[in-house]
Amino acid sequence: MGSVRPVDILLVEDNPLDIGLIRKALKQKNLANSLVVLRDGAEALEFLFARGNYTGRKGFPPPKVVLLDLDLPTVSGLEVLRTIRGDPATRTVPVVVLASSRQEQDIVESYRLGVNSYIIKPVDFEKFAEAVSQIGFSWVLLNKPPAH
Amino acid sequence: MGSVRPVDILLVEDNPLDIGLIRKALKQKNLANSLVVLRDGAEALEFLFARGNYTGRKGFPPPKVVLLDLDLPTVSGLEVLRTIRGDPATRTVPVVVLASSRQEQDIVESYRLGVNSYIIKPVDFEKFAEAVSQIGFSWVLLNKPPAH
Repeated sequence: MGSVRPVDILLVEDNPLDIGLIRKALKQKNLANSLVVLRDGAEALEFLFARGNYTGRKGFPPPKVVLLDLDLPTVSGLEVLRTIRGDPATRTVPVVVLASSRQEQDIVESYRLGVNSYIIKPVDFEKFAEAVSQIGFSWVLLNKPPAH
Repeated sequence: MGSVRPVDILLVEDNPLDIGLIRKALKQKNLANSLVVLRDGAEALEFLFARGNYTGRKGFPPPKVVLLDLDLPTVSGLEVLRTIRGDPATRTVPVVVLASSRQEQDIVESYRLGVNSYIIKPVDFEKFAEAVSQIGFSWVLLNKPPAH
């Protein structure tokens, strides 16, 4: 990887089925061109902070939105969110949690840490694709992040 | 007013044209049933904190989303946002700013105060209606707020 172009959407997700579905839904909205998919929390943090394999990203604006699964290997989604919100360089990056569970403690903790939106992945495939389209449209095309 | 039923969307907006357009766009998505429109910041705070004319709302869950204009009479949108984020009872209520301006200082300040999403009202009527539909769908149907 080591992508050195601007990125609209950073998807942090380790479930291959979900990745495929999300990619397809974004492609249908022409939003997949500037999508980067990373499969674990540690790599997501390297990407966002331009460390490790991603030092080439220094000076690049952050993604317009981070779509974050919670149940990730190495570093959990909640820990990724906490780190993003704890650093002035990334504090205002929009983060949308895509969760498999509706565990109230994950929801409460995500809001406490400053998540922008918490979405429970619909089980139905069509509904999941529709949700991803809406999320992509809302965050990439409608939302105005602060200038970097 | 003094509405004592659950409310999905609280729109705080004083521009009658914008109110009409937003109401119509939400109606088309069947999201206008549980919409409350308030025209100034002070009244929005009374509603959210069940004070003044709105004491009957004590114990009701907060709206699923607050759509907030920034340029409001009596109490500004940024002040409303600051008050919402400063009180444990309302800290996690999703707030989406609907701004007329793309003034960078408003954008930066909104994110600093913890806005969930910052949308610049499209000038084109159709695009504004489309944006409102997407926002309504995303926040009322997709987003999962913490239980109250």
